[in-house]
Amino acid sequence: MAAGILNSVPASAMGSGTNLPDKSINDVISIKLPPLEQPTEKEQAVSSVSMPKDKRIGYAIVGLGNLSLGQILPGFGASKYGKPVALVSGDADKAKKVAAQYGINPKNIYNYQNFDNIKSNPEVDAVYIVLPNSMHEEYVVRAAKAGKHVLCEKPMATSAAACQRMIDACKQAGKKLMVAYRIQYEPHNRLAMEWVRSQKFGKVKVIDMMNSQNIGDPSQWRLKKALSGGGSLPDIGLYCLNTARFVLGEEPHTVIASTYSTPGDERFKEVEETVSWQMHFPGGAVVSAATSYGVHQSRRYRCYADKGGWFGLDPAFEYSRLQMEGSHAEGNQEIKIAPSIKEVQQFALELDHFAQCILDNKTPFTPGEEGLQDQKIMEAIYESAKTGKPVKLQTITTIDTFRGTPPKGDS
Amino acid sequence: MAAGILNSVPASAMGSGTNLPDKSINDVISIKLPPLEQPTEKEQAVSSVSMPKDKRIGYAIVGLGNLSLGQILPGFGASKYGKPVALVSGDADKAKKVAAQYGINPKNIYNYQNFDNIKSNPEVDAVYIVLPNSMHEEYVVRAAKAGKHVLCEKPMATSAAACQRMIDACKQAGKKLMVAYRIQYEPHNRLAMEWVRSQKFGKVKVIDMMNSQNIGDPSQWRLKKALSGGGSLPDIGLYCLNTARFVLGEEPHTVIASTYSTPGDERFKEVEETVSWQMHFPGGAVVSAATSYGVHQSRRYRCYADKGGWFGLDPAFEYSRLQMEGSHAEGNQEIKIAPSIKEVQQFALELDHFAQCILDNKTPFTPGEEGLQDQKIMEAIYESAKTGKPVKLQTITTIDTFRGTPPKGDS
Amino acid sequence: MAAGILNSVPASAMGSGTNLPDKSINDVISIKLPPLEQPTEKEQAVSSVSMPKDKRIGYAIVGLGNLSLGQILPGFGASKYGKPVALVSGDADKAKKVAAQYGINPKNIYNYQNFDNIKSNPEVDAVYIVLPNSMHEEYVVRAAKAGKHVLCEKPMATSAAACQRMIDACKQAGKKLMVAYRIQYEPHNRLAMEWVRSQKFGKVKVIDMMNSQNIGDPSQWRLKKALSGGGSLPDIGLYCLNTARFVLGEEPHTVIASTYSTPGDERFKEVEETVSWQMHFPGGAVVSAATSYGVHQSRRYRCYADKGGWFGLDPAFEYSRLQMEGSHAEGNQEIKIAPSIKEVQQFALELDHFAQCILDNKTPFTPGEEGLQDQKIMEAIYESAKTGKPVKLQTITTIDTFRGTPPKGDS
Amino acid sequence: MAAGILNSVPASAMGSGTNLPDKSINDVISIKLPPLEQPTEKEQAVSSVSMPKDKRIGYAIVGLGNLSLGQILPGFGASKYGKPVALVSGDADKAKKVAAQYGINPKNIYNYQNFDNIKSNPEVDAVYIVLPNSMHEEYVVRAAKAGKHVLCEKPMATSAAACQRMIDACKQAGKKLMVAYRIQYEPHNRLAMEWVRSQKFGKVKVIDMMNSQNIGDPSQWRLKKALSGGGSLPDIGLYCLNTARFVLGEEPHTVIASTYSTPGDERFKEVEETVSWQMHFPGGAVVSAATSYGVHQSRRYRCYADKGGWFGLDPAFEYSRLQMEGSHAEGNQEIKIAPSIKEVQQFALELDHFAQCILDNKTPFTPGEEGLQDQKIMEAIYESAKTGKPVKLQTITTIDTFRGTPPKGDS
Repeated sequence: MAAGILNSVPASAMGSGTNLPDKSINDVISIKLPPLEQPTEKEQAVSSVSMPKDKRIGYAIVGLGNLSLGQILPGFGASKYGKPVALVSGDADKAKKVAAQYGINPKNIYNYQNFDNIKSNPEVDAVYIVLPNSMHEEYVVRAAKAGKHVLCEKPMATSAAACQRMIDACKQAGKKLMVAYRIQYEPHNRLAMEWVRSQKFGKVKVIDMMNSQNIGDPSQWRLKKALSGGGSLPDIGLYCLNTARFVLGEEPHTVIASTYSTPGDERFKEVEETVSWQMHFPGGAVVSAATSYGVHQSRRYRCYADKGGWFGLDPAFEYSRLQMEGSHAEGNQEIKIAPSIKEVQQFALELDHFAQCILDNKTPFTPGEEGLQDQKIMEAIYESAKTGKPVKLQTITTIDTFRGTPPKGDS
Repeated sequence: MAAGILNSVPASAMGSGTNLPDKSINDVISIKLPPLEQPTEKEQAVSSVSMPKDKRIGYAIVGLGNLSLGQILPGFGASKYGKPVALVSGDADKAKKVAAQYGINPKNIYNYQNFDNIKSNPEVDAVYIVLPNSMHEEYVVRAAKAGKHVLCEKPMATSAAACQRMIDACKQAGKKLMVAYRIQYEPHNRLAMEWVRSQKFGKVKVIDMMNSQNIGDPSQWRLKKALSGGGSLPDIGLYCLNTARFVLGEEPHTVIASTYSTPGDERFKEVEETVSWQMHFPGGAVVSAATSYGVHQSRRYRCYADKGGWFGLDPAFEYSRLQMEGSHAEGNQEIKIAPSIKEVQQFALELDHFAQCILDNKTPFTPGEEGLQDQKIMEAIYESAKTGKPVKLQTITTIDTFRGTPPKGDS
Repeated sequence: MAAGILNSVPASAMGSGTNLPDKSINDVISIKLPPLEQPTEKEQAVSSVSMPKDKRIGYAIVGLGNLSLGQILPGFGASKYGKPVALVSGDADKAKKVAAQYGINPKNIYNYQNFDNIKSNPEVDAVYIVLPNSMHEEYVVRAAKAGKHVLCEKPMATSAAACQRMIDACKQAGKKLMVAYRIQYEPHNRLAMEWVRSQKFGKVKVIDMMNSQNIGDPSQWRLKKALSGGGSLPDIGLYCLNTARFVLGEEPHTVIASTYSTPGDERFKEVEETVSWQMHFPGGAVVSAATSYGVHQSRRYRCYADKGGWFGLDPAFEYSRLQMEGSHAEGNQEIKIAPSIKEVQQFALELDHFAQCILDNKTPFTPGEEGLQDQKIMEAIYESAKTGKPVKLQTITTIDTFRGTPPKGDS
Repeated sequence: MAAGILNSVPASAMGSGTNLPDKSINDVISIKLPPLEQPTEKEQAVSSVSMPKDKRIGYAIVGLGNLSLGQILPGFGASKYGKPVALVSGDADKAKKVAAQYGINPKNIYNYQNFDNIKSNPEVDAVYIVLPNSMHEEYVVRAAKAGKHVLCEKPMATSAAACQRMIDACKQAGKKLMVAYRIQYEPHNRLAMEWVRSQKFGKVKVIDMMNSQNIGDPSQWRLKKALSGGGSLPDIGLYCLNTARFVLGEEPHTVIASTYSTPGDERFKEVEETVSWQMHFPGGAVVSAATSYGVHQSRRYRCYADKGGWFGLDPAFEYSRLQMEGSHAEGNQEIKIAPSIKEVQQFALELDHFAQCILDNKTPFTPGEEGLQDQKIMEAIYESAKTGKPVKLQTITTIDTFRGTPPKGDS
C-alpha cells in the first residue's frame, strides 16, 4: 500500500468557504482553572473554551422530526461554536413552539416553500439538513444556492449520482459541505481509530460489527423506498460501513453480501430487514458486518489484532454512554480493559467541527466525498446481494482518501 | 416505626415563596413525537418539554470556580426551566469572559461588595451559591435579604448553628431555600431509592459505601479548615451520608467513627484524610461507610437485601455515566443486572427542580432542613472519632422527615 | 417448517450398544444434603451423585497431546461415570509417566501398532480418539472393530465420505459413536439454547459469532492440510457452525463465504487463516460468522431476538469461565444481564454423557451423524469461498435432526 | 515499621515434620508440551506435573458434611500431591457410600469413637478436620497424638486459648499443623496481594470489604453458639479479616466494631447477624469491613491506593469464578481492568500445599499461628462491639509474622 496521503483530494473539490467578515476562530474565549487533584489522577483541570454567543455560527435547522427535537437542538446547549438561529418546517405551529423553547426569533421560521429566502438572512451562516434521505439532494442544493454552508445528515442521498450533484453544487457555490458522520467526531470511536492506526495490539486483521434496532410503525418514511433509498443498510448498517472505513483509514476493494426480509412482515415490503456482508481491504483486513431492522437494539464492533489483543465499542453508535472495551494478554493473565472518556454531546461535536471549519476556512473531516464513497459501497453491497457474487470496487491505496481536516481535540 | 409521614415539617418552615407575577409553570411548552421503534423496545418516544426562554427562572451564579465553570454553567445548556442571567465574582475580568461565553448581559455582573444590588434586578429570580463552605451562610442570608430564592451548594455550612440561621433567614424573607443535593434528583440513584423502598429484593439491611478522591494542591481552600469546615467528610463523605439517608428515607440513631490522616502529609495538617463510620438506622439497617481524600477516586455503594438480591451504583456520585448494578438469585442461576437509564445533565435537573418549585410554589425536595440534618450527623461522626465512643442522635421514626415535594419525573 | 421431530433418525442408524453385563446406570450412588441458605438464595443444596469407582466406564485415551494432558485426563478428576484405564501413544516413555500420574496400570499402555489388542482388555469399555483430524477415521474404525464404543474429537474427520464410513463401521460393530461436541453439553451454552427455543425475548433472527486464536509454531500438524483437512474453519470456526445449529436446532439451507490468508505468512501456506461466512436457516435466522487463526483470541456470539432482547456468550467456547450476557428493554430502562451457573469441568460432562449412554443404552446427543452434517456444511463453505457463489444445502425442516438423547441435567 | 521479617517465628514453633520414609517431593513427575499459540498470546503451554498416585499424601477426611462432599472430596480430583484414603464419620452408611464413590477402601472408614486407630494405618499421612468449630480442638489434638499431620478448617477454634493448645499439641507431637485458609493459596487473591506489596498503583491506604450470605435453617450448628463460637464473624467475616491481613502482610493495632441482629429472628438468638468493623494497621491502612448472615450473598473487597488506581476482587471468596477488577487513570482516560487467571480448584491447592510441606518438610504458609492471630482479633472485635470502645491489639511491625513457606506457583 502507498504511504498515507492525507487530503489527497484537493480542498477545492471539497467546498472551500470564504471567511465570514465579522466572525473568526480568533474570537474564541479560553478560561483555564488549575486542577484540584493529584497528578496521578485522571486529567481533569477545568477549562472553559467557547466562542462568545454573538460570534458563533448561526445554524438553520431544516426539518423538525425526532432527530432535530431529540438530539440536535438539545445538542446546541453543549455547543461552543454554534447556535440555532432559524428553523425550517412544514408545520408552522410546531416551529413556533420550538422557536420559543430555544429562544429563536420567530421571524427566522421558514417553510419548504420560502426556504430559499434564508439567502437574505445574515444571521444564518450554515444550514443543517435533517430531512428524509431522498430530500437531502434538493435541500443541499437550495442551501448552497442561497449562499450557505451545508451540514447534511447521513446517508448523504439515495444514489451516488445525487451525492456527486450535491458536491458539485456546493463547490460551484463556494460553500462547504459536510456529512454528519457523528461517529468520526466521537472520542471513544476516535480512540479506537488511534489504536488501529498506532497498532496498539498489532495489526487489525478482522473486525466484526453489528448495528440493529427493531423498527416500529410501518408507515414511517424510513420504510418507504422512495424516501429512504433502502432499509437497515443506509440507516444503521451505514454506521458499520463508515466506521470500519474510518478506523482502518482504508477503502474496501471487494464486498460480498446477502439480505433477508421476513415474508409477510408489512414493515419490509419495500426495504430490506437484514443485511450481512463482508468487506475486504487492501491491507488485508476482513470486516464481517450485519445490520437489521428486525431485532433488539445492539450496536457493537470489535477490532481483532495480531499481537495479543483486541478492542472495540459496545455500545458503539448510541447517542450517549458509549463504552470502549478490549482484552489483551499479559504473561499468564488475560486482561479485559474498559477505558472511559468524558461523556460528550455528540451532536455538539459535529456542529462545532463544522463551525470551526467555517470560521477557520478548512475542509471538514467528513466532506461530501466521504458520503459519496459510502453510497458507492452501499450500491455494491446491494448488487452483491442481488447477484450472489462478490462485487469489486475501485482499489484505493491511500489513507483517509476522502477526508479533510481532522477535528481538534477537546478544546 | 411509624408510617411514613411525608413532609411532616410544615411547608412554612421550609421557606414558601410568592409566585412570580409574570412566570408560571403553566407556560411550559410540550411537543411529543410518536415512537419509531417496536413497543417491545425501550420507551423512547421523543418529547420536547421546556419553558419558553423568556419565561424561565433567571439565576445569578455566585462564585466562578471549577464547579460553576465546569458543571453548572454548562448545565444550563440542558436546563428546561432555568437560565443564567447574572454572575457574581471577585474577578471582574473572568466574569466578563464568562458572560460573553454564555450570552449574559455584562450589566448583570456583580462582585462581593455590590452583590446586594441584585435586589433591584428583576431578571434575577434565584441565586445559586457556589462558594467555599464557610461563606455559604453569609451569601445565603444576603441573597434572602435581597429578596431572592436561594439554591446553596453542599455542604450547607460548617456548623449546625449556621444551617439553622440560614433556614431562619430564608423563612423570614419568605424565600425558598434548597441545598444542591444533586444525587437526590439523579435518575439512577432515584431508581435505587425506589428499589429500597419497594423492597424489590426484600428489606435492605446492610449498605456499604465508599467515596474517595486523591486531592491535590495543598493550598486549595478545601484543605483549610476555616474555609471548608473539615476534610473528606463534608466534601465527599457527605455523599455517602446523604445518599444512605435518601435511599432508606430514615435517620440514623447512632454513629460510630474513626479518622486517619497520614502523618507528615501537608494536605492533611488541618483537615482529616480518611473517615470510616457506621450508622445504625431505626428500621435495622446498618451502613458501613468510608471516605478518603488520599486514595484513587472511587464512588460506590451497594444495598444488600434479605430476599435474594443486592443492588447499588458504581460509579454512584460522578457527574456522568453513573451505573446501576445488582445481582439476584433465580433458580440455580445468579444473575447480575445492570439497568441503564438515559444519560442526563445532573445540574440541569436540580436547577430545574428548584425553578419548578419557584414557578409552582412548592417546597424543594431538599430544603435547608435536609442540609441541617446532615450537618448534625457529621458533627456526631467527628465526635465519635474524637471520643472513641458511639454517639446517639435523636431517634426519628417518620420517613423523609426533612424533605419536601419530590421532583417530577422526566418531563 | 414441520413440527420438531426429535430423533427422526432411527437410533439403530446411530449405533446402538449392548449393555455391559456388570455395569449399569442403576448402580449410581446418590447422597443429598439439606441446603444451608435461605430459599430466596441460589439453589445450592449439596448433592453427591456418582457411580462407584469400580462400576464406571473405563476409557482408553488415544493420543497424549495438549488436549489429553491439559484437559481430558484432568477432566476425569471431575467425572462421575468414567475413569481412565488405558493409554495409547507412540511415545512409550511419556505414556508410562502419565500412567503413573493417573494411577493407570502400566499393562494397559498401548501403541499405534498394538492398539487393536484392546479388544481383549475387559477394563476398556470405550475409546476416546484424540488424534490429528486425518487419523480419526482409521482409529474410530479400528476401535469399533475391537468391539469398543467410540468417542471421537471434533472435527469428526477431513471429509464427509470419511464421516459416513466411520458411522457405518460403528453401526456394523453395534457400537456407539459420539463426536466430542463439548459445547452441546456445557450449561451456559445449553441455557442459550433454551432461551432460543423458548423464545425468551422473542424469535432469534440474527446471530453473530466469532472464534479466533493466534496460532503459533508453523510446523504443528494443525497447519498441515493433509493432517488437519483445513485451517481455522475445522478447528475453531466449527464451534460457530456447530453452536449456531445447536441453539437454533435447525440446519442451514444456504452458505456464503470468503477466505483470506496473509500473503507470505508461513503458517498459512497450506491452510486458510480467516473465514467469514453467512448461513441462512429455514426459519429465517441469519448467522454472520467469522473465524481466524491470525488474531488475538476471542470466542463469542450473540443471538438477537425480535421481542426486546438479545443474549449470548462471551467467552463462549473456552474450557472454563464461560459467561452468558444479554440485554433487554424494561420500560425506559435497558437492562444488561449476566446469568452465571456453576463452573463445571466440560470434558467431564461429555465423558459422563457418553458413559451414561453406554450404561443406559441410549444414542448420544451428538452422534456421528452430527459430525457428518458439520462436515457437509464446511465443504459448502469452502466451495462458496472458492467459487464466489452462494452454495445451497439440502433443506431440512425438522428440529434436532441429527441429535440423539439429550444429556441429563446436573445430577 | 521494621523491614519485613519473613518467618520471624521459628519453624519449630509451627510444627516441623519428619519426612515420610517412602514418599518424597523428588518423586514428582513433570511433562511439558510446547505451546500452540503465538508468543504474544497468554502463556498456555500445557504442563502436566503431579506425583505418582502411589506416592501421594494420603488424607483422612474427618466429617462428611456439605464442605467435604461438595468441595473437598471433589477437590481431590484436581489434586496433584494428595489423595483421599480414609473417612471419619458418625454415619457409617453415608461413609460407605462416599467410600465407594471415591474408591476408598471400606476398611479405612472410622467413626468418632475409633478415630484414634488411624495411628496404626500407614496409608493415612495427614488428617483434614472438617467438623463444627467447637470440635476442631479435640480432633486436631487426637490426630496429632495419633502421629498424623493436621489440616484444620477455619475458624481454627472458638477461643484463642484453644488455638494455642492445638499449636502446642502438634508441636509436641512433631507434626505439622495448617489452617485451611483457602484464599491465601488462590491465584486471584494472591495477585491482589502482590499488587498491594509491589505498590502497583501506589500505597494501599483504604480497603473496604464485605462478605455476606443469607443463612437458612435455624437449627443448623452454625447458629448454635456452643458449636460455632459466633455467627457471621467467625464463619464468613473471617474472610475479610484474614484476607486484609494477608494482602497487607501487617497486623491491625486497633479495632472498632458494632453488631446488629434483627429482633425476633430465630436464626439469631444465639449468634450475631451483622458485624461492621474498622481495623487500623501500623502502615496507616484503614480497613472498613462488614459481614452479615442476613442478606443476599456478596463477597467483595477493594484496595484503594494513592498513585492513581484501585483494585480488588468481586466475587472474592467464592469457590470458583473469582474475578479481579481495578481501575486506574491514564492521561484523560479512566481504565477499568479485569485480569483473569486460569480457573483452579481451590481446595486442591491447599491440599497440595500441605502435601508439599509434608513431603518437603516445610512450615505451611498458614500454620496454627495464623489461625490463633485471627482468633485474637475476632475476640477484640466482639469486645469492641460489646463495650462501644476501640480495642487495642499488640502492635506488630514485622511482615507476614505468622506465616510460613509461601506456596509454589502453578507447577
